[in-house]
Amino acid sequence: MKILIINGPNINLLGTREPEIYGALTMDNINDSLFDYAKTLGVEIETFQSNIEGEIVDKIQQSKKNCAGIVINPAAYTHTSVAIRDAIAAVNMPAVEVHISNIHSREEFRKNSFIAPVCIGQISGFGADSYRLGLKGLVDFLNNNIEK
Amino acid sequence: MKILIINGPNINLLGTREPEIYGALTMDNINDSLFDYAKTLGVEIETFQSNIEGEIVDKIQQSKKNCAGIVINPAAYTHTSVAIRDAIAAVNMPAVEVHISNIHSREEFRKNSFIAPVCIGQISGFGADSYRLGLKGLVDFLNNNIEK
Amino acid sequence: MKILIINGPNINLLGTREPEIYGALTMDNINDSLFDYAKTLGVEIETFQSNIEGEIVDKIQQSKKNCAGIVINPAAYTHTSVAIRDAIAAVNMPAVEVHISNIHSREEFRKNSFIAPVCIGQISGFGADSYRLGLKGLVDFLNNNIEK
Amino acid sequence: MKILIINGPNINLLGTREPEIYGALTMDNINDSLFDYAKTLGVEIETFQSNIEGEIVDKIQQSKKNCAGIVINPAAYTHTSVAIRDAIAAVNMPAVEVHISNIHSREEFRKNSFIAPVCIGQISGFGADSYRLGLKGLVDFLNNNIEK
Amino acid sequence: MKILIINGPNINLLGTREPEIYGALTMDNINDSLFDYAKTLGVEIETFQSNIEGEIVDKIQQSKKNCAGIVINPAAYTHTSVAIRDAIAAVNMPAVEVHISNIHSREEFRKNSFIAPVCIGQISGFGADSYRLGLKGLVDFLNNNIEK
Amino acid sequence: MKILIINGPNINLLGTREPEIYGALTMDNINDSLFDYAKTLGVEIETFQSNIEGEIVDKIQQSKKNCAGIVINPAAYTHTSVAIRDAIAAVNMPAVEVHISNIHSREEFRKNSFIAPVCIGQISGFGADSYRLGLKGLVDFLNNNIEK
Amino acid sequence: MKILIINGPNINLLGTREPEIYGALTMDNINDSLFDYAKTLGVEIETFQSNIEGEIVDKIQQSKKNCAGIVINPAAYTHTSVAIRDAIAAVNMPAVEVHISNIHSREEFRKNSFIAPVCIGQISGFGADSYRLGLKGLVDFLNNNIEK
Amino acid sequence: MKILIINGPNINLLGTREPEIYGALTMDNINDSLFDYAKTLGVEIETFQSNIEGEIVDKIQQSKKNCAGIVINPAAYTHTSVAIRDAIAAVNMPAVEVHISNIHSREEFRKNSFIAPVCIGQISGFGADSYRLGLKGLVDFLNNNIEK
Amino acid sequence: MKILIINGPNINLLGTREPEIYGALTMDNINDSLFDYAKTLGVEIETFQSNIEGEIVDKIQQSKKNCAGIVINPAAYTHTSVAIRDAIAAVNMPAVEVHISNIHSREEFRKNSFIAPVCIGQISGFGADSYRLGLKGLVDFLNNNIEK
Amino acid sequence: MKILIINGPNINLLGTREPEIYGALTMDNINDSLFDYAKTLGVEIETFQSNIEGEIVDKIQQSKKNCAGIVINPAAYTHTSVAIRDAIAAVNMPAVEVHISNIHSREEFRKNSFIAPVCIGQISGFGADSYRLGLKGLVDFLNNNIEK
Amino acid sequence: MKILIINGPNINLLGTREPEIYGALTMDNINDSLFDYAKTLGVEIETFQSNIEGEIVDKIQQSKKNCAGIVINPAAYTHTSVAIRDAIAAVNMPAVEVHISNIHSREEFRKNSFIAPVCIGQISGFGADSYRLGLKGLVDFLNNNIEK
Amino acid sequence: MKILIINGPNINLLGTREPEIYGALTMDNINDSLFDYAKTLGVEIETFQSNIEGEIVDKIQQSKKNCAGIVINPAAYTHTSVAIRDAIAAVNMPAVEVHISNIHSREEFRKNSFIAPVCIGQISGFGADSYRLGLKGLVDFLNNNIEK
Repeated sequence: MKILIINGPNINLLGTREPEIYGALTMDNINDSLFDYAKTLGVEIETFQSNIEGEIVDKIQQSKKNCAGIVINPAAYTHTSVAIRDAIAAVNMPAVEVHISNIHSREEFRKNSFIAPVCIGQISGFGADSYRLGLKGLVDFLNNNIEK
Repeated sequence: MKILIINGPNINLLGTREPEIYGALTMDNINDSLFDYAKTLGVEIETFQSNIEGEIVDKIQQSKKNCAGIVINPAAYTHTSVAIRDAIAAVNMPAVEVHISNIHSREEFRKNSFIAPVCIGQISGFGADSYRLGLKGLVDFLNNNIEK
Repeated sequence: MKILIINGPNINLLGTREPEIYGALTMDNINDSLFDYAKTLGVEIETFQSNIEGEIVDKIQQSKKNCAGIVINPAAYTHTSVAIRDAIAAVNMPAVEVHISNIHSREEFRKNSFIAPVCIGQISGFGADSYRLGLKGLVDFLNNNIEK
Repeated sequence: MKILIINGPNINLLGTREPEIYGALTMDNINDSLFDYAKTLGVEIETFQSNIEGEIVDKIQQSKKNCAGIVINPAAYTHTSVAIRDAIAAVNMPAVEVHISNIHSREEFRKNSFIAPVCIGQISGFGADSYRLGLKGLVDFLNNNIEK
Repeated sequence: MKILIINGPNINLLGTREPEIYGALTMDNINDSLFDYAKTLGVEIETFQSNIEGEIVDKIQQSKKNCAGIVINPAAYTHTSVAIRDAIAAVNMPAVEVHISNIHSREEFRKNSFIAPVCIGQISGFGADSYRLGLKGLVDFLNNNIEK
Repeated sequence: MKILIINGPNINLLGTREPEIYGALTMDNINDSLFDYAKTLGVEIETFQSNIEGEIVDKIQQSKKNCAGIVINPAAYTHTSVAIRDAIAAVNMPAVEVHISNIHSREEFRKNSFIAPVCIGQISGFGADSYRLGLKGLVDFLNNNIEK
Repeated sequence: MKILIINGPNINLLGTREPEIYGALTMDNINDSLFDYAKTLGVEIETFQSNIEGEIVDKIQQSKKNCAGIVINPAAYTHTSVAIRDAIAAVNMPAVEVHISNIHSREEFRKNSFIAPVCIGQISGFGADSYRLGLKGLVDFLNNNIEK
Repeated sequence: MKILIINGPNINLLGTREPEIYGALTMDNINDSLFDYAKTLGVEIETFQSNIEGEIVDKIQQSKKNCAGIVINPAAYTHTSVAIRDAIAAVNMPAVEVHISNIHSREEFRKNSFIAPVCIGQISGFGADSYRLGLKGLVDFLNNNIEK
Repeated sequence: MKILIINGPNINLLGTREPEIYGALTMDNINDSLFDYAKTLGVEIETFQSNIEGEIVDKIQQSKKNCAGIVINPAAYTHTSVAIRDAIAAVNMPAVEVHISNIHSREEFRKNSFIAPVCIGQISGFGADSYRLGLKGLVDFLNNNIEK
Repeated sequence: MKILIINGPNINLLGTREPEIYGALTMDNINDSLFDYAKTLGVEIETFQSNIEGEIVDKIQQSKKNCAGIVINPAAYTHTSVAIRDAIAAVNMPAVEVHISNIHSREEFRKNSFIAPVCIGQISGFGADSYRLGLKGLVDFLNNNIEK
Repeated sequence: MKILIINGPNINLLGTREPEIYGALTMDNINDSLFDYAKTLGVEIETFQSNIEGEIVDKIQQSKKNCAGIVINPAAYTHTSVAIRDAIAAVNMPAVEVHISNIHSREEFRKNSFIAPVCIGQISGFGADSYRLGLKGLVDFLNNNIEK
Repeated sequence: MKILIINGPNINLLGTREPEIYGALTMDNINDSLFDYAKTLGVEIETFQSNIEGEIVDKIQQSKKNCAGIVINPAAYTHTSVAIRDAIAAVNMPAVEVHISNIHSREEFRKNSFIAPVCIGQISGFGADSYRLGLKGLVDFLNNNIEK
């Protein structure tokens, strides 16, 4: 069982980007820790990052072939992308939205997510741990094949 | 290290309450699974449920003495209680907000949380698993003593 | 068949409270008249009043055991309580929302009801008669077992 | 004492119109049951239906001569007609607004009533019973000559 | 198979009315061209115009007997008539909303349609051609008996 | 030169309708005084009243043949009728909107006029005198043939 | 009987200011015509113009001593000045708000008037004639001593 | 003459709660200083604190028997409690709303008070001194028996 | 004469994507039928699909060289893309916006189109037929060279 | 230590201005009582009134030289003046906003204060006593030199 | 060619006013540097500052006689003054709006400018340099006599 | 010192695109003039244009290595791109937002900028000159190393 980990715009700058908000770990650090963690959960992961909304849409569409679910940090596109929302709904795969920072305690416009309503759920605020929690939540969901 | 698990109004009806939204597990089922899970994380838990907003405020205030953090499912009070928000801010303890259902895909008024902005983060939509993910996230946070 | 009559905050002051809006009858007057009226409808009633939102939630939960339906005047909680809304939805019992005054001709914030959408319907503006009309409507509904 | 029963647009289609919302009774069925019910209340009724807003205004104006009160289901005009509101205020007769469906649990725009603020009150959600409850409420009001 | 063509208020002035917005064709010109076009599509049409909202409601109700679908240009009532919306929903017939001008590039209040949500779809901006496109779309829909 | 005086819904009740708002004069009193006043201005007037929005639209359309301008008190339709707005714009005749009461000091929804933007101007609050001022303003406008 | 004519900011530029909106007459032209017109109405007038909000407040306060009423074109302050509103309410004198252009057909922010709710009424759109109509309306009001 | 001092949720944590906002004094410190200050004003005080909205409603109702007025810091309930508003209106006693912090310079949702409109007035921002000022204002009000 | 057919994000998934909303035809099916239909209209078509907003902007810019008009289904970008709107306005070519589903009967955010105001018009709700209607409307427009 | 007392527009009319809202005392009465009260507090006061927003800004700027704090009743400018807000912030002196009437129980637009967020606090509703309470609050603040 | 430099309220306090926002330069420093800079651009400047909205209106009106354009920092009046907007439109002279701080990154109410829509453009955020950039932009505009 | 000049979507069409709004210069004309102007300021520039939001994000990220600041005309993305905002904040480089047209005098949605709050400032309305002013402002900022 393979899980796709998608990172949206500017996540590739983690570690140097506003560290008081996003912490000191780089995206590679996080991905490495996820590869390890995935093993303990008995799944494989594939990672993907793009700053281009439409490339994320492309990737979600392609993942249908070889992935069982998606963990996505849509970053800035959380608040502006109907296209990514529609892509997730279109492939009809279980997805989990994660955020490093707590989007509910920042600017007003960051509270709204176009993506979360078509996901299993949303996890926000746990730093790099948000990815691990999201991955665990998704794998639990897939293992139990819970109908929501 | 002890963690307080707080459940808000109507969570005591879980299992019989709108099972198509909230699933078939009872609150006792969830609490039992959390006691077990807590052991694997090396922490103790204490559980509390009330339908009364002010009693939840009381409990949060008292927990300061013997708890290191809080996992709270504020349920209906998520959207209406400034008092619980102020209580969490007042005791200045790390807290995690969890929801069984995905509040971002329900009625418009359920998207807003008065509580989340004063928490580490919010986890929503994973059924009973939301509690386990929230507990794990909180314990990870406490162990790393991460300054956000 | 037993019906629970719930009165929300400050209804216990009826008769002395802003009589130009709420009339001169006390809550006891109204309850007495409802006991009589219930007999003519062939049902029993139980009455309950609390100023505490969560106690009303408690009572709704407990009524599931021995009541067939609820007539509720949520008073001030009409406009602020998601918890009572969720309780009614959770017990999945037919309920009727009643108001002594015409809430549609008062302050703007009194027009919105969190409770009405999970009730059979709402009756507003008939003074103490609103309870009798609500009780009649509920009993008619239960007798016909109409699926809405 | 005569009461005017007014039905607004599309109520003449009852029985065939969206029966999952409005039930299986026709307007004639309802009117017949109201004639019977009126007798038990010691009043006469006159019924009127029009799909034309201004004809309803005309009828309200004329009713001043021979009616003591109005039970009105303004249907779609509930949400758009200031003219009917002004007519009721202009004739200064007691009126009751009734709705077959629970307008508080439907589309957002159906929650607002231009008419209710100039009525004694509003009854919504009891199917055909809403008319009987409304008629009873109005007759009780007229008999007691209650000043609101 | 017969299709009802309904024109709302002021459409009878076409040709003289604000020609820079609505063009130089009269309503009769348009209807004549529709009679011809209908033949090529293998259907009959009946035309109707009224400036009175309730008469349009009446006509929609009556069309149930002898028409298979409706092409309607509700004109000004697009933005204000819940009654016409309810009529179309009540007769449960396929309908198409058409507009001569592009309502999306005019005053803000012209962007909202109460009617479109209960129609198959909306066509706006093609001048008199909007009717032909709407008629074609409706006939295609009826021929394929597509369930939307 | 003939001027059409249009009165909207419920104006025919003037004199008895909410006299504390609308005064004690009847519509006939006002019309009589306007016939006299028109003579002093050197114009003829024709009067029209209807409670039906679409009949007012009809009348406006017909007035194009024999009138030079319109004084209209759209009453309740001021706030809800796009159809009357479109009719005035369609006939492209100078029109003046008048109101007996000061619509700017009443309910919030009475502040908005769909009609005023397509008129020369609006006069509000002078009781029956609003008509005379409106007629004078319109005649002055027509005499000067002022291009606005 | 003396009437105060107040002109707000930029009215002193009339004649040169955006003539396509405000016309070609200067403020002196208008005042001269008002002096003449006042005579025919049997009243005196005094004129005042200032670009300073507070000076208009001062003038309104002082006019209490020797004036019976006020005709005011508050110009830009119409939409922003609570101070002028309060001044008119404070002196408790009848006032009429006039506008050269039709404020209801311009920018959205020009539709709201802070001043009109404390005036007898508002006249808008008749060019320089708005003043004459306003003066006539005020004098009629004072002569009849109508209680609104 | 006795005055009831009511403190709402979390005020019992004063001194330790967010001291940069609420200062270093405890609620007992404040109450002690109020007992002393009350003596200088020639009145008695009784103090009450609860985190439960409905208990505050209960207390307000009971105070009618032995108190002449209320000083209330509704804390979080300021912004969410219609029940406390209705209680104060119901007992029809003079009340003063006080706040330690300046609620007008904090989060947007703290600017609105459901309580203030039914009080004599509101005092906000003076730290513990707000209580003393509120008590003085109330006593002055009662002594002068000023009708507002 | 060549027409460019543009499909926005996720349209390439048609046939498998939420078939209850979008139907069972694939994008290739639709394009094939359009090639055939274009011949009957005497025009050529070129088709283009991208999930990337900016590539759609690129394509619109390039089409200026060899196309006479555009039929565009902007899909998710309908509601979020000012860039595509500006591109269409910039090339100043006639364009038609089409939608497979009826966007007026879905989520609130799908009602707004940034694109439609710079198009000839919008066609929404006719399934794959929307493209054919749009193409016909555009070709009619180009043949008549109608100035809107 | 000297305190500047600033009164905004129309306060100079106190005593005659809407006495049912503002009471019967004149501004001179209030100032006299403040001179006396100031002595008991051990401070001097200087009084200033202007109807001109900018003169109040001037005065605030000048007060920096010889005053320790400001008590200001901005009256109408409370709701419209960013300039006075900026002046208080610019001089960086402690200020207290006072109101004679309870601005929270009047028109909606009077609830918002541009000034309060840059003051120590706001006192509203105590008639002339608001000034004394405000002066006391300010002097207490200055004496304790409390850092907020 | 002479350019008028206008500074609005509180700009005269620059250097001492909130230096973390507005910097350490005084208004005289800025004006001196502008006199020098103007010479290099081949123009003269005249400077003006007032805290009074209406005096700024007066000055704009007078500048028509001897100035070719205006650089204005309306400060607080940016967000509240329709009068200054109308004055600039009335004199029909090219104007540039400048701000020392970046108004787009401050309080929400500072984002809206009533003035900018009637100016050539707006420059915000460059400290004292905003004036020099604005002057250069205006002079370039005047020299090229660019029609916008 | 090198400055990156970024142009967003459709700027590459300048010269042919809506010249009444954007002028007759091409992007190459502007870039050429900027190369010359940069020399006079003692800096180098690099130019970049893309219609793809994510490519602009990529470029901003890369510029960190060899550029000292950014002048960006985000064009349509000004109003919709959180991703570009986050990129500028993430690289933590001084940036200036420029616009050819005056965005404050166009459609309502063009008034909001997601980008400006993370820039030094915004310059809007000076045609091609906006770039030169922006470049000058940025270089002045960098030379003075002003801390804002």
